Parts: sequence; structure tokens; C-alpha cells
Amino acid sequence: MADQGVQITAGKVPPRLAVLRWDEPPEGPVLVLLDQTRLPAEEVELVCTDVPALVGAIQSLAVRGAPLLGIVGAYGVALAAARGFDVDEAAALLEHARPTAVNLGHGVRLAAGAYRQSLAAGTGHDRAAEAALAAARELHRADAEASRRMAEHGLALLEELLPGGGHRILTHCNTGALVSGGDGTAFAVALAAHRAGELRRLWVDETRPLLQGARLTAYEAARNGMAYSLLTDNAAGSLFASGEVDAVLIGADRIAADGSVANKVGSYPLAVLARYHHVPFVVVAPTTTLDAATPDGAAIEVEQRPGSEVTELTPPRAVTDGQVGGGVSVAPLGTQAYNPAFDVTPPELVTAIVTEEGVLSPVTGGGIAELCARSRQVTIS
Amino acid sequence: MADQGVQITAGKVPPRLAVLRWDEPPEGPVLVLLDQTRLPAEEVELVCTDVPALVGAIQSLAVRGAPLLGIVGAYGVALAAARGFDVDEAAALLEHARPTAVNLGHGVRLAAGAYRQSLAAGTGHDRAAEAALAAARELHRADAEASRRMAEHGLALLEELLPGGGHRILTHCNTGALVSGGDGTAFAVALAAHRAGELRRLWVDETRPLLQGARLTAYEAARNGMAYSLLTDNAAGSLFASGEVDAVLIGADRIAADGSVANKVGSYPLAVLARYHHVPFVVVAPTTTLDAATPDGAAIEVEQRPGSEVTELTPPRAVTDGQVGGGVSVAPLGTQAYNPAFDVTPPELVTAIVTEEGVLSPVTGGGIAELCARSRQVTIS
Repeated sequence: MADQGVQITAGKVPPRLAVLRWDEPPEGPVLVLLDQTRLPAEEVELVCTDVPALVGAIQSLAVRGAPLLGIVGAYGVALAAARGFDVDEAAALLEHARPTAVNLGHGVRLAAGAYRQSLAAGTGHDRAAEAALAAARELHRADAEASRRMAEHGLALLEELLPGGGHRILTHCNTGALVSGGDGTAFAVALAAHRAGELRRLWVDETRPLLQGARLTAYEAARNGMAYSLLTDNAAGSLFASGEVDAVLIGADRIAADGSVANKVGSYPLAVLARYHHVPFVVVAPTTTLDAATPDGAAIEVEQRPGSEVTELTPPRAVTDGQVGGGVSVAPLGTQAYNPAFDVTPPELVTAIVTEEGVLSPVTGGGIAELCARSRQVTIS
Repeated sequence: MADQGVQITAGKVPPRLAVLRWDEPPEGPVLVLLDQTRLPAEEVELVCTDVPALVGAIQSLAVRGAPLLGIVGAYGVALAAARGFDVDEAAALLEHARPTAVNLGHGVRLAAGAYRQSLAAGTGHDRAAEAALAAARELHRADAEASRRMAEHGLALLEELLPGGGHRILTHCNTGALVSGGDGTAFAVALAAHRAGELRRLWVDETRPLLQGARLTAYEAARNGMAYSLLTDNAAGSLFASGEVDAVLIGADRIAADGSVANKVGSYPLAVLARYHHVPFVVVAPTTTLDAATPDGAAIEVEQRPGSEVTELTPPRAVTDGQVGGGVSVAPLGTQAYNPAFDVTPPELVTAIVTEEGVLSPVTGGGIAELCARSRQVTIS
């Protein structure tokens, strides 16, 4: 049952969204996901018993968002191990389910590494499967903790950049509890500002073609009792022009070694608008999003998605598991669409990157390297 | 019957779109409009027998586009006169049907002026009604001629700005035969480039929220056998970043005395992107779009449209006459939307304004005044 339209009493924190959980019914372990393609109309759970089902859920965007994809990848490996499937094969399938979010591969390798290490130590298969699950749970917990710390650092940054409070923040796509083990990334910062009484308005880009802003961010904003307005991505320009945006906060799917940020398509135009209007453009992402192995923006592989996402209107209820499309045609038959899922913002347009390890500003290759080193230390310690 | 999917043989010019016609069946004169809200799925005609029906068609965007609105306004006055309704009342209703396009008021005043002048000359009501109709027909003809000349001037400008041909042109909203007595404004220039073998690709912004790009521009591009690709408005940023846009061509709904351009929401972000990437940003509009009475961009009234256009997905077939909305909710119930129909681009971001009277570049208040004077001379002569 959807809680849309429900008024959240001010000051009351709504119950945490059950975005993902590991369950162990008698028939064997399963990964239960909130089907995000059905939101905000319905809160439907998707029960995945194997990796192909999980890959389908990832590709249909039933589960999405860079940090959450990492957690899902790790649990996916644990699921394959617990159910006696080939872990290497499962890891390869999961890692390539979507190409742009670096976190997915990170989570997969973390759990697969724990599994293999345990096997190599001669513990036997069952203990190795437990090790994979423990690694997934630890990543889940660490991501929630990272979320909390990003919100803290991000709020402090806002206070520094925009003294006086009453922030009007523009955000793009969905970066809240639906993408994370905690409150999310960019949205978590806006939520922290709201809880601190410092948020005047959250401007929510609808985020075409899949409307994650309208469907998911508006849903999370309503759920948390935040003052928000929805707009077509197009309309952001007039808001900047009339001085109604104090800062842009977005997430990231991959941050290259030079600080280039791959994020949902439409982020780059916002960065250019923000620069033109001297408005801070802030990226909020955990250090697991940093990818030292990708030297720069040009080296980031950008996922191209089916043209039908653009040529057809697909209301949320009509999206069926693992299948995108099936909507009503809005363009002439045979229309070819250019539909990249992401775009890349160069470091010179990014005011700051907020991570759980602190704030990087200005964004430089040296700074990214340092953040990577610091996060590795934390992981090792 | 829709002609979508029909292959137009190269070199063959498709039959002119019947966007609007004056008809005189035995029951009395009517204005017949192509219902643009049904495109591209269906080609349905809307028969208007009185001004309130016409106002409904204008407000529901069944008929739209700045130059066409001017023609419709003029025919609307002629319709009221021919059917014996109060012409002053009809003119007032029509003039305020939509606030931003200056052409609407211009067309209305032109036909109403002809009617009143004829009455004042003592010709009697029937001859005055004929005078109003003649004025509407003359505006219709002049607009087609303006279209032809804009295309000519625009093509010459493209050749000057982008020597070597093979243009990749980005356009926004719909500015073709569906908005005009001729081939349109910005689209007419792209079509002229196509006919001259100089158009490599037309990038078609879908143009949220009402998808005039996906529904109408893609339809016109397919109809004319042009090489085009559809994209979400969001995705234009990556095209600029990868150097795949040689020029932006857009229309205008009102151009203030200082050269500020009001056009479909999303035009301004394109202007900022174009400036950032050193790509020409060209506005194509007849001189009837120039509004010497509006001093600058801040003085332009921007129409705010219903939030339901953003919070609901409305496939073309579901739009009923005079009623916007009725779609499937994509945002939580109660979501407030910011939905301006237009935005304003300041003159310093506009490379050139192409009119039927020639090309203005750079765009200055003096240049606009001169164009206004020249077009008045033409009207008077």
C-alpha cells in the first residue's frame, strides 16, 4: 500500500524505507527488493531467488542508484554462494549488469573476494558463503554510516557556502534512501538541511526519461515532510535565471581519477547552468564511487539505453519486471532516439565533492588520489 | 489516418499539411484545425464554429505555435464577424487566450481593425465581416511568404557561420508547418538545409512537458524524409560536450525591444550550453514576433501552466479537447509543480535573429527597432 498523500507530522521521522533485505525462508535464502519501477503508485516487493532474476531487476531499474547497486552486487554474490550456484559466474553476470556505476563491481568483488579467501583458507563452502554474506552485510552497514557522514559534511559545506540558511536546493534524479543503505547521498544532505530547519525548498528535476525525480525523489521528499516542487528538467534554467537556486546537489555513478563525474544524464547541463549563474555545484558520493583505474571523463563508459524509453510514455504501473517499454508511442513509428543514461561533468565545473571521508574542493586529481588512499586505509584498518 | 511510418521517397516533397482552413459549409462558416494534441498517432480535424471553441483549442494546445496563433486569432475574429457574434468581445477573448505569444494579439487586432475600419466607412456588417476575413487570409499568405524568406535568410546564415555544410542542428519544441502558414520558422531553415543537401542530422529535443518535439517535430521531420534523432531535453548536454551540435535553431513567442527572446521552456538552458561550447544560437521568427512595447525580458509575461502537465503522463490519445491532464500520476499525490511554458533568453546569448526582413546579428535594441520600422513600412506599403 502506497503512503502517498499521507501527511507526515512535522518533527516525526518516518519509518525507514525497506529498500532491500536478506531473508531466509524455509525454501532457502532470498534477496527482497522494493520494486522502484512501481513507485510512487505501489510499494511492491520483488523476491529474487537467483542471480539472473537480480540482473533482470538491475537492468529494468527495479533496483538502482550507485551505492545501492554495490550493496545489491555483494548480496547477489552471497545469494549465489548460499544457494550453491557458481560464484565466479554469478559475479561476472552481476558485475556487467550495468556498465557505468563503479559501485556495482566494487560490491561484487568485495563479496566474491571474501568467499574465495575463505575457500582458500580451507573453511569449506558453507563457511565461505557465510563470509560472502558477512561482507555484504558489512558493506550495507558501512554504506549507511557513509551516508550519515556525507550528510554531516555536506550540511557543514552548505553552511559555509551559503551562510544564513534558508537553502533552495536543486537536485536531479534520485539519491535518497532508495539508493543507499542509509539516507542516500545528495538527498541525505538536503534531508539533513531540512531536519536542521535550513531547507527552504527542494527543487526536484523530474529526470527524463525514467522520471526518477518525479517518481522517487518527490516520493521521498513527501515522505519526509520536506517543502519541494517538481519541475521538468527544462525548467531549471528559469529558476537559475530568477535567482531561485542557491546550490545544486547531485550524486555520482563513477568519479574518474581526474575528478570527472559521471551521473544521470542532465547533470552536466545543470553544471554549466550553475557555473554561468555562479551557483555552487556539489557532488555527494561515497568513496566507493571513486575509480582510480579510470583516468578521466573520456574513459568513462556511458550506458546507452533503449530508445523506447524516449519514444514511448510508460506509466509506472505498466513497467513489467525485466522489461522496459510497452508504453504508448509518442513519436512517429521508426523514430531513432539518442538515449544515454549518464553524462560526464568535468572537474572544473564541480565546486566540491562531498564524501564520507570529507569534502574535496577544489576538485583535483591529487585530491581524488588522496581520498582514494584514505578510504583504502579505512577499509584495511 | 496517420502517415507515420510512411517512407517519403527522397526528392519528393510531401503534400502540405492541412494545419488550418476556413470552410463555408451550408450551416455557416467554420474554422477547421488539425488537432495537434492527437499527433502523431492520429490526424484528427477540429471544427470550430465559434470563438469559445477556438479559445478552448488554443488553451488545450490543439492549435499552437506563435505565427499560427496570429493567423488563428485573425480567422477567429473573421469567424465571429461572419457568424454575427460581438466582434469586440470575440477579439478580447481571443487576445487573452494565451499570454506569451505576441502574434496572437497582433492577428486579432489586424482582423478586428479591418472589420472596424470597414464598418466605420459605412460598408455595413457583411462587407465588414468580409474585410476581416480578407485580413486573415492576407496574414495567412504573408506568413507563408515570411516563412519562405526566413528559410532563405537562415540557410545563407548557416552557410556563413558553418562553411562546408553537413550541418548538425539541434532544435527545441516545434517550429515547422504546424505553427505557420508556410514551412515554419526554425524548422523551415533546417528543412531548407535538408533540401539543399546540407543537413547531416536534426537533433530533436523531445520538449517536456508536452513533448512537442517528440510528437510534432519528429512527425514533420519523418514526413520530410530528414535524418533526425530524438532525445530527452536532458541529453542535449552530452551532444554539446562531444561536439555533435553545429548550431541551435529555435523559434520565438515574443521578442522584447532589447532583443530578449521568450520561447518554449528549455530554450534558455540551450542558449547557456551553446555559449559555453561556442556554438551559434540562432532564433528564427517573423517580425510579427517583435514587440516594441515590451522593453525587456523582465517585462515579458510568462504563462504558468497546470502542474498536472508535469505530475501526470498523458499519452497523446488521452488528451481531450479543451482539457489538459487526465493522465496517469507519476508523482506522489499532492505534488506541487513549477511549470512555466516559456523562458527568456537575454540578447547577449543570441547569436542572430533571422526574420523575413533579414538577419540581425549582433542582437541589439537598435537593431530590433530598425527591424520593427522596416516591417511596419512593408505592412503599410
